[in-house]
Amino acid sequence: MRYRERVERLMTLMRLHGIDNFLVTGRSNLLYFTGIDGPGALLVSTKRSPTLFVPPLSKIAAETYAPDFLEVVATKIDERFNVVVAENVGSVGGATAVDEMPLDDYRFLSGLLAQAELRPGMSVVWELREIKDEDEIAAIRRACEIADRAMRAAFEILYPGITENDVKAEIAAEVYRSGGERLAFDVIVASGPRSALPHGPLQRSGEHDRALREGDAVVIDLGAVVEGYHSDVTRTFFIGRPDSQFTSAYEAVVAAKEAAEQYIKPDTLCGYPDAVARNKLAERALSEHFAHSLGHGLGLDIHEPPRMSPTSSEKLAANMVVTCEPGVYIKGRWGIRIEDTLLVTERGPERLTRFEYSEYAVS
Amino acid sequence: MRYRERVERLMTLMRLHGIDNFLVTGRSNLLYFTGIDGPGALLVSTKRSPTLFVPPLSKIAAETYAPDFLEVVATKIDERFNVVVAENVGSVGGATAVDEMPLDDYRFLSGLLAQAELRPGMSVVWELREIKDEDEIAAIRRACEIADRAMRAAFEILYPGITENDVKAEIAAEVYRSGGERLAFDVIVASGPRSALPHGPLQRSGEHDRALREGDAVVIDLGAVVEGYHSDVTRTFFIGRPDSQFTSAYEAVVAAKEAAEQYIKPDTLCGYPDAVARNKLAERALSEHFAHSLGHGLGLDIHEPPRMSPTSSEKLAANMVVTCEPGVYIKGRWGIRIEDTLLVTERGPERLTRFEYSEYAVS
Repeated sequence: MRYRERVERLMTLMRLHGIDNFLVTGRSNLLYFTGIDGPGALLVSTKRSPTLFVPPLSKIAAETYAPDFLEVVATKIDERFNVVVAENVGSVGGATAVDEMPLDDYRFLSGLLAQAELRPGMSVVWELREIKDEDEIAAIRRACEIADRAMRAAFEILYPGITENDVKAEIAAEVYRSGGERLAFDVIVASGPRSALPHGPLQRSGEHDRALREGDAVVIDLGAVVEGYHSDVTRTFFIGRPDSQFTSAYEAVVAAKEAAEQYIKPDTLCGYPDAVARNKLAERALSEHFAHSLGHGLGLDIHEPPRMSPTSSEKLAANMVVTCEPGVYIKGRWGIRIEDTLLVTERGPERLTRFEYSEYAVS
Repeated sequence: MRYRERVERLMTLMRLHGIDNFLVTGRSNLLYFTGIDGPGALLVSTKRSPTLFVPPLSKIAAETYAPDFLEVVATKIDERFNVVVAENVGSVGGATAVDEMPLDDYRFLSGLLAQAELRPGMSVVWELREIKDEDEIAAIRRACEIADRAMRAAFEILYPGITENDVKAEIAAEVYRSGGERLAFDVIVASGPRSALPHGPLQRSGEHDRALREGDAVVIDLGAVVEGYHSDVTRTFFIGRPDSQFTSAYEAVVAAKEAAEQYIKPDTLCGYPDAVARNKLAERALSEHFAHSLGHGLGLDIHEPPRMSPTSSEKLAANMVVTCEPGVYIKGRWGIRIEDTLLVTERGPERLTRFEYSEYAVS
């Protein structure tokens, strides 16, 4: 990955925004700029060379993996990591931006830097991270291939009697066997009336697991991680023969997804594909059951800018990676969601997850 | 779970601390007070009944699962969730505490509540969450039982030639098959020289997977989640016959762990067991290779207060749940860590994870 280039681009943006120091402590941001999977803190300054602070826990990892252009400082076991970092920032001086940190840490740092200017800088980091470079796109492609394989593995074991947890076990195992670092998020396998819950059932006493039955819709939402980068795909299956109402809604979700995808291209407002999908569902009086945004950006986080929602005022740009995932949820009965991970290109969207969705009935 | 009781206790603390409103938005805190697995926002106020705001995505889940004493308000798809919540907080007025939120949201809320007093309140939430009630302890017990089963499943397939990812696949599958909601964190299976990295190898190109070999130490660190509650256990195995240096270090880690556990009891300073473990390792000149804290609290988060570290100034109390996990890491060669999840009781620590660790050589 292009760590030096990314830090140099951050410094360019710092000059534009009048920032002397940038303190990076967020896990995904550390991965982005250093390749180190925290905990740690990167201080990028116009006044000294970029320095990565790590607690003793990460010393060997930093020595082994940190790129050469970074100075690495390991704190000691009896030092408070936050204090050491704050003292270093204070000693450099100047306008300082931070990416993200707990409120208490922010207030501690604010107090220490009374003379200096402290400001949130996450929006600056997003200027960089929203647009993926070739290395990032390659990692996301592989994460998407693994997600497709995991969806295939799940699909192949769907039958009446198998439980949601059995399906999750198969998905998780396939992600690891295929070389994924981990699941991108808590895999959702939601069957029957539970499929009407977009995030699946809450795991409370007596509701931990459920066997699939004839007549169930089954929403499966999963992703894999490769080199820190996420993928995200959802398919909905039906055990047995769906009735005409389900079939009609399924077709409407497909139509909404494919209509929206036509507008996932550079310079389109992020809210526009969402509106297209919602209008398409309205043709069959289903738009009130589409209870979430059309999608989200993804990369080192599973949910990143840009938001693909009605209230989003951003514009899409080439080499953003976003999901398109319309859904319809009927309380107590069933839910349907179909989702792909898409690369925005000048020629339109490229589907990075490709598991087919024209056949969905499992008999 | 005792949601009403928890909210009532929060209100008692609010009165003590002069807080009129408490806005809860953190995922684990929402689970703690409402049983709802976000996104959402709970407004607890001395001036109105407790209200749970949810975006449309969570409307059905909130209607299905929210406890009766909560008023539920679902926002609309074309409303900005943060703005609706902020307006409601503003309209109530008074000193307002927040648990945690991104800096940009905090500043937005601060701006809106110019007349009111806005303050961080996470420490107030920890006063409650640090001490586990019976329901919480029951959930953690079950999460620990599942972790033990997953460790057993991993142990049984360890042999030369199997890869780290194969072992992870087995662990993940066993957690789901045993009724766990998910893995508590990215499972660590770190073999050979990689075992010297406390968090395992960084997943970079060409280093994604590794087959176990004769002469490898293998550190396996895993946990499961039940009803939102975490468990955490680590064992170290050796493929083949360890040499005397490894054996001696292994015995030292066991001795450090068991010595430290004697002091995991009410009213002990959290830094004390850490010092006991470190002194025990110093007897064999290994303390400089113990590169992290002795442990951490756990519950709805995998890392919570109290910190069990040299710089911790807290005291242990009955019904806290903490880990005890000394380790020794020799760069380029091997690492050893042994960890259990412990319940603090008046009679001393109760081990909730129980996989035995006296035998560790796999032949």
